Amino acid sequence: MARDPSAQRATLSAVAREAGVSVPTVSKVVNGRTDVAPETRARIETLLVRHGYVARGAGGAQPAARTVDLVFDAMHTPNNVEMLRGALEAAASEDVDVVVGIVPDDPLGASWARRMAAAHREGMILVTSSINSQQWRHFAEQHIPIVTIDPVNLPGPDVPSVGATNFNGGMAATGHLLELGHRRIGFVEGPPGAMMSLARLHGHHAALSRAGLASDPGLIAPGGFSFDGGFAAATRLLESPGRPTALFASNDSQAFGALEAARTLGLRVPQDVSVIGFDDTPAARWSAPPLTTVRQPFAEMGRVAMRRLLRLVAGEELTSPRVELATDLVVRKSTAAPKTFEA
Amino acid sequence: MARDPSAQRATLSAVAREAGVSVPTVSKVVNGRTDVAPETRARIETLLVRHGYVARGAGGAQPAARTVDLVFDAMHTPNNVEMLRGALEAAASEDVDVVVGIVPDDPLGASWARRMAAAHREGMILVTSSINSQQWRHFAEQHIPIVTIDPVNLPGPDVPSVGATNFNGGMAATGHLLELGHRRIGFVEGPPGAMMSLARLHGHHAALSRAGLASDPGLIAPGGFSFDGGFAAATRLLESPGRPTALFASNDSQAFGALEAARTLGLRVPQDVSVIGFDDTPAARWSAPPLTTVRQPFAEMGRVAMRRLLRLVAGEELTSPRVELATDLVVRKSTAAPKTFEA
Repeated sequence: MARDPSAQRATLSAVAREAGVSVPTVSKVVNGRTDVAPETRARIETLLVRHGYVARGAGGAQPAARTVDLVFDAMHTPNNVEMLRGALEAAASEDVDVVVGIVPDDPLGASWARRMAAAHREGMILVTSSINSQQWRHFAEQHIPIVTIDPVNLPGPDVPSVGATNFNGGMAATGHLLELGHRRIGFVEGPPGAMMSLARLHGHHAALSRAGLASDPGLIAPGGFSFDGGFAAATRLLESPGRPTALFASNDSQAFGALEAARTLGLRVPQDVSVIGFDDTPAARWSAPPLTTVRQPFAEMGRVAMRRLLRLVAGEELTSPRVELATDLVVRKSTAAPKTFEA
Repeated sequence: MARDPSAQRATLSAVAREAGVSVPTVSKVVNGRTDVAPETRARIETLLVRHGYVARGAGGAQPAARTVDLVFDAMHTPNNVEMLRGALEAAASEDVDVVVGIVPDDPLGASWARRMAAAHREGMILVTSSINSQQWRHFAEQHIPIVTIDPVNLPGPDVPSVGATNFNGGMAATGHLLELGHRRIGFVEGPPGAMMSLARLHGHHAALSRAGLASDPGLIAPGGFSFDGGFAAATRLLESPGRPTALFASNDSQAFGALEAARTLGLRVPQDVSVIGFDDTPAARWSAPPLTTVRQPFAEMGRVAMRRLLRLVAGEELTSPRVELATDLVVRKSTAAPKTFEA
């Protein structure tokens, strides 16, 4: 089939003539633009197929699609799927292609930034647990706009980032347990130094303090954001004297570990102990019992990160480099009033 | 900073001179190649930054990275993360970029295939529940190699696809329950017409038949591959007279629904009823109790699909268009011998 430009132009002209439209309209359809009426598009597509039209090869003058990167530092959490979906939807609505990658084993460095620039990438969304100021500088030197999603540590206040209202979410979780009548509430912490875990813990403290209750350090246990960590922390808290009637696990994986710890100890959830998580991963709907949790709007975070990145690429300034999207309490079946509570 | 080719060549020469290496070595570092010793790379990178090197813009003669598409028809299942991870790893090891997309609302059609060709994509991996022969033809007309991962229906025997050994996996699941002593085993089916569900059901039949047992149609219930479907199917089976002592849910979501159905009916898993799933999604490790299931090697499926796609792109022929990777029984805590079983 014809791949040389002049033969292709001839095909486009013939198709335009037969379809009764202009050559630019045919070009729009060829380029996948959406501003052509559906019936017209269908007519043109049929004719293009009939004429054996083949898009231009690498030698053609057609401009390449705009492309940005979306990079994960790991791809193990289901949250990433939701972020990815939101980011892809936002990019698709602006006709931007998204190259998805996983951070290579060696830390983000100068060579990687330079390679991105060489590949004509316009910008990057980075879903990473951490980015240090030196890594950040490498990208700044290549003039590649970056937006991060929920890094554990921000290299500086100027780094554009999208997160969720972790402090408010922490308050909402503990507020829910307090309203049900719980007074001894265990807290399962994330990894040391993780900003998001710290914000959730302080939301927990704030809710207790607003209810006139003191925080008991003996009710806080480290869980490392993992199922196993949550299992160990919950087991320790539930076996301690004066055990809590409710557990706030600061992410869903830890909450699933807590559900399994309760089951193993012969405790029923929520009759004997309430469990609340944080994230609202898809699995939260599927646990036994389904998990009460604080929803992070992962898809929306991906969407907002992409929209902000495309604004940076267009040369706009962001008035606020950091935005936090609202969390939301989702009450399912893992929380109830404590047995000893008299309403 | 200099963006014109001659100024860039001058910078590369200066850096090569100062670093005591050849210009091609500097180019390798600029292009992100990995065959440069780490100390040499570090020295060159420092000098490139000091010389204010900026990669060539759109006018440069540098060849664009090779790019393929990876397209999902939905992005809701955690399995997709694993497939994506495997495919990205295989692509990265061959220096190929992967543009990830979600199938647009309108079905896969001619305009989409043409747009891909216009963007110089070399091939596509399609993770889709179905592809019809007309859609397939559009891509064939654009000479774009495609590999599908586990479609519900194959448009024809020539369509390259990667799946898992669903029949063998079904036999292994029921074989495990039979070995534990179960004789009445409920089966929760996937959506009508789904090839993979059919293969698992027939693996179940084969295991029963090998053990000299007849299949009881009353023990088969539709579950639509969803949590809610699994919950409803398991509830019906567990409330029926002569209820099964074990349930084989043909995917993990249905199995989680079955765990919740058991909990709701006051039945303990595995003491009162065993539950086995199919997939080994990450959540299978986190359920209460952790789920015995048949593992599909999702990451490996993504890896193999990408490797096969790159072979097609290179003009090679695949000796077998369809490959199935081995499933694996993963025994956790949701299966045990039935109470009535005398060993």
